[in-house]
Amino acid sequence: MSDRSARKREAILEAATELFFDREYAGTSMEDIASAASVSKQTVYKHFSDKRTLFRQVALGSVGQVSGAFGAEVAAVAEASDVPAALFDLARRYVTAVMNPVLLRRRQLVLREAGRFPDLARKYHETGPRRTIDVLTTAFARLAERGELVIEDPRVAATQFAFLVVGEPLDTAMFRGAGRRRTRSELHSVADAGVEVFLTAYGRKNQPRMLRESASSNS
Amino acid sequence: MSDRSARKREAILEAATELFFDREYAGTSMEDIASAASVSKQTVYKHFSDKRTLFRQVALGSVGQVSGAFGAEVAAVAEASDVPAALFDLARRYVTAVMNPVLLRRRQLVLREAGRFPDLARKYHETGPRRTIDVLTTAFARLAERGELVIEDPRVAATQFAFLVVGEPLDTAMFRGAGRRRTRSELHSVADAGVEVFLTAYGRKNQPRMLRESASSNS
Repeated sequence: MSDRSARKREAILEAATELFFDREYAGTSMEDIASAASVSKQTVYKHFSDKRTLFRQVALGSVGQVSGAFGAEVAAVAEASDVPAALFDLARRYVTAVMNPVLLRRRQLVLREAGRFPDLARKYHETGPRRTIDVLTTAFARLAERGELVIEDPRVAATQFAFLVVGEPLDTAMFRGAGRRRTRSELHSVADAGVEVFLTAYGRKNQPRMLRESASSNS
Repeated sequence: MSDRSARKREAILEAATELFFDREYAGTSMEDIASAASVSKQTVYKHFSDKRTLFRQVALGSVGQVSGAFGAEVAAVAEASDVPAALFDLARRYVTAVMNPVLLRRRQLVLREAGRFPDLARKYHETGPRRTIDVLTTAFARLAERGELVIEDPRVAATQFAFLVVGEPLDTAMFRGAGRRRTRSELHSVADAGVEVFLTAYGRKNQPRMLRESASSNS
């Protein structure tokens, strides 16, 4: 695809996101989308064969990109030398990425249209949130192997990390579509507080209480 | 309201929940609801003046009840003698309550219809999730005052507690409406793991690393 064609495609996806969001799926036509993206209706159809296909792309197109890029960052954290610093940094980038307004609207759209597109909602969940927890699980297993974290169940720890860092901002945004956006520094402070709790529980110097108790009762 | 009238009202609300969920708000009539609830159309109108009012009651009716009952339990935890045991118990009841299938569908409905009813979505969020975090905040402030927890910012800790305990099960359920339901014991294990992390971070014996570091650098 040429640069120009790729730019048009992205413009169509952004216009479609806003329109599906404002007027619901049923109330949006391909013509409306062409007009909002300042392209011809033929151009829309050249990129997307019909409205369902376009909606699928809106919902699933960016989620793969985001979790792919995030996967590479997480893999780097698994080999970091200063693990706490790498985790603080990762958490800040993670919450900033998921709170991107365009991506947030796409997530809201998927939830809003989950009745009409249940398979899409499941696929989104697998490709996005679930995939993120998968890559965190792999990284935390590696960090435990390296002795940098003390973790019994890496998947449990990965899930807790994710919800400590992005849980509340994302959940609140789902209910308050047009609400006040949080500043970057507000998001960073949520991420920092989440990583502090995570490191206290799983960091090398402070073993979780349960592990320590069972270790001492076994000795 | 007589018992019989209250039972009919509840039957109407449950039938409406299922129908709004299966056919969307726009595709559901008051007649459909009367028929599914095995009551006359007049009975539906006696309880709810129109479809919008009924939808509001579906969405907001039970959320207040749940957070009210939960508020009383949380207040008791604030004065408990064995605080860790009380928190484990609270977390298990919390996750079981929010994962109740009828309440879960109401939450999904609110998110699905958030475009049509943005004020309702905000109100739901304030009366439900936000209110729960408020009562947890008050309890954690009291537990810190009693010296049972070591907490700098009770609202941050309350939010983390909530998302450690119910974050992932709730979020997954929003995307997978008709998916496999988790067993009570699966939910309990999520709750337990969340409380372990929480207590390691905020429990009396293990101060969070950051607090300890700043305390020692000030001494």
